[in-house]
Amino acid sequence: MNSATATIADWRIYPVNSLPVALQRQPDGVEVTWSDARVSLFHHLWLRDNCPCPACVYPVTREQMFEIVDAPDDLSALDAQLDGSGCLAVQWSDGHASLYHPGWLRAHAYDEQSRAEREQQASRPLLWRAEMNQQLAHFDYQEVMTRDDVLLQWLRALRDTGLTQIRNAPTANGSLDGLARRVAFIRESSFGVMFEVQSKVDADSNAYTAFNLPLHTDLPTRELQPGVQFLYCLRNDAEGGDSRFVDGFAVAEELRRLAPDSFDLLTRTPVEFRNKSARNDYRCKAPIIALNEDGSYREIRIANFLRGPFDAPTEVMPALYKAYRLFIQLTREPHLQLNRRLQAGEAWVFDNRRVLHARDAFDPASGERHFQGCYLDRDEWLSRLYVLERQA
Amino acid sequence: MNSATATIADWRIYPVNSLPVALQRQPDGVEVTWSDARVSLFHHLWLRDNCPCPACVYPVTREQMFEIVDAPDDLSALDAQLDGSGCLAVQWSDGHASLYHPGWLRAHAYDEQSRAEREQQASRPLLWRAEMNQQLAHFDYQEVMTRDDVLLQWLRALRDTGLTQIRNAPTANGSLDGLARRVAFIRESSFGVMFEVQSKVDADSNAYTAFNLPLHTDLPTRELQPGVQFLYCLRNDAEGGDSRFVDGFAVAEELRRLAPDSFDLLTRTPVEFRNKSARNDYRCKAPIIALNEDGSYREIRIANFLRGPFDAPTEVMPALYKAYRLFIQLTREPHLQLNRRLQAGEAWVFDNRRVLHARDAFDPASGERHFQGCYLDRDEWLSRLYVLERQA
Repeated sequence: MNSATATIADWRIYPVNSLPVALQRQPDGVEVTWSDARVSLFHHLWLRDNCPCPACVYPVTREQMFEIVDAPDDLSALDAQLDGSGCLAVQWSDGHASLYHPGWLRAHAYDEQSRAEREQQASRPLLWRAEMNQQLAHFDYQEVMTRDDVLLQWLRALRDTGLTQIRNAPTANGSLDGLARRVAFIRESSFGVMFEVQSKVDADSNAYTAFNLPLHTDLPTRELQPGVQFLYCLRNDAEGGDSRFVDGFAVAEELRRLAPDSFDLLTRTPVEFRNKSARNDYRCKAPIIALNEDGSYREIRIANFLRGPFDAPTEVMPALYKAYRLFIQLTREPHLQLNRRLQAGEAWVFDNRRVLHARDAFDPASGERHFQGCYLDRDEWLSRLYVLERQA
Repeated sequence: MNSATATIADWRIYPVNSLPVALQRQPDGVEVTWSDARVSLFHHLWLRDNCPCPACVYPVTREQMFEIVDAPDDLSALDAQLDGSGCLAVQWSDGHASLYHPGWLRAHAYDEQSRAEREQQASRPLLWRAEMNQQLAHFDYQEVMTRDDVLLQWLRALRDTGLTQIRNAPTANGSLDGLARRVAFIRESSFGVMFEVQSKVDADSNAYTAFNLPLHTDLPTRELQPGVQFLYCLRNDAEGGDSRFVDGFAVAEELRRLAPDSFDLLTRTPVEFRNKSARNDYRCKAPIIALNEDGSYREIRIANFLRGPFDAPTEVMPALYKAYRLFIQLTREPHLQLNRRLQAGEAWVFDNRRVLHARDAFDPASGERHFQGCYLDRDEWLSRLYVLERQA
């Protein structure tokens, strides 16, 4: 069943789980009936657009050379046949010929059933509450560094729950660099490629003080919040400074249940976040709770200490404060929180666009506390995950 | 008039162009009447939230320590007064006292008139067509590198028209690095911090071939397309390879005029872009024309050679191909295009989320062609622009 030999203009693998068994010519396309009785119409323009032959797609890059705008307006199929391996062969009215792999074709079919199936198979976040204190996904540093299957497990945990811990890691200065680059290159910010989370006299962020930091996402002041944050503990001998996490999607879900109007307002109202210093002036206006078009959670954006003044119509302002205060109260609810003290050689790795993190105040005079941090963008760790899945 | 002495929890400067002249206490706030007769209500919670005193805002970072969730539910103002310099002084029912600078207060007033005024004063893109061939904003390398006022002019041109050229630049390998870092740090991608635009045998992108590249934005396969692209010419002795640009917003505007239904479909239909190689697998699904909530243009996302198969309901597919082919046809219209041949020592710097660029095919055997490129994100060059404006 996997003997189909048409070119695939992709690096992913497309297994053949269902074969085309019949073709029906339509005025504007070819209708395929599959072995499981599904029926998919493929329009002529769609098929011509996706011809994988070496004249249409440059084989070295697997990127398209052909442009569908150059097809004639009256393009039609002179002939369409299934070959012995289940590939679809089309002869075009402009003289071109195309051959489509059945696994690829099925994976990209756009009939209602195929689209619904893809939608259903997409990964979804697993929301968590305080029980995460017992269920935290943790991974061994050496295993992550040396085994691709463990790396894949880790990245899937990050995708699904958004909060993971690495243990038994070296405590040499800069060890974080190797761990992060095991996944992808690091996203630089105005705070550097790697940042030192230490109390500084000339702090340009409250993160670089010994104060309590309330639950927040990092860099909500940038259009694209960093996707993953690493917080790597080299030394933690000071009193205080414990870590706190909360699943921002679970907080939003609680708000939706308790006060749907407040939830709705926070999904619709742009809030400006400001990261300002003598040398920088970042401003980003976006809602605190961002939803996808289907109503699922896209991201949470919040840091009280980086928030600019609310700017909303006068009549909306009281409701906005009600909603905001309710949201922040919920982030403080013990039944939603995970609390841990990080030890030297442990690192938090979490989805910064979903999981809020906080640090209790600490006493810099009581001992040394030295964390290093860095960011990777979501595109990068997802790309790594997808490539690992090709081999898995 | 500028003698107001209240703290401002910001690094921007807020000139006093209108003074508060009267206060009216309301049940839920303080109503300010300004010297130009504008009336602004400030709710108690909003005012308390924005108290700039050193207990509420850490003076070193100018970031908030106080959280409005900690204000009592029944918070009210015991007293509100204007001082001699036009500052608003409020005594709170919980014992706290606040003082607000009139320039800051006016800049953040959220009455209908103030909000409309801010909306109107926001910068807007200046759309261009082929006449840009005569009107191209160009800047001298040495002036940009040494004069802050020229740097600010350049960044403003980039913001307004999205297409600029730097001339008289050094042609030593790596000179681009200094030019880019005059603005901000460089955004790394899977193609590196700086990329070499040369024909390569083992190309992982059609950009690294000698082929014609149709008009496109770079990295539409990433959630956040790079904000600014630098294309720096070190040598251009090969036949062919001329540059072409088109204002994507002008193309969209033309489409809106000619075929409103097609325009609408391209703003609503997510299209998947794929950057796939043996080592990477980036996927991003987003509309080709993205609008802001007010209908203004947000960004254009297009690269035919990085587009995945369209995935839309069967009944929508014919209209989607009509819209897509029309859009691409318009990008090819001479009356919308700028065409130039870059000389050694010249660099294009353009808004990659708006301005589409293309390269004609060239003959690598006819002479050397060596361009270097890099990206900066929009957050970075806007921050640089805002900081320069504080001093201007």
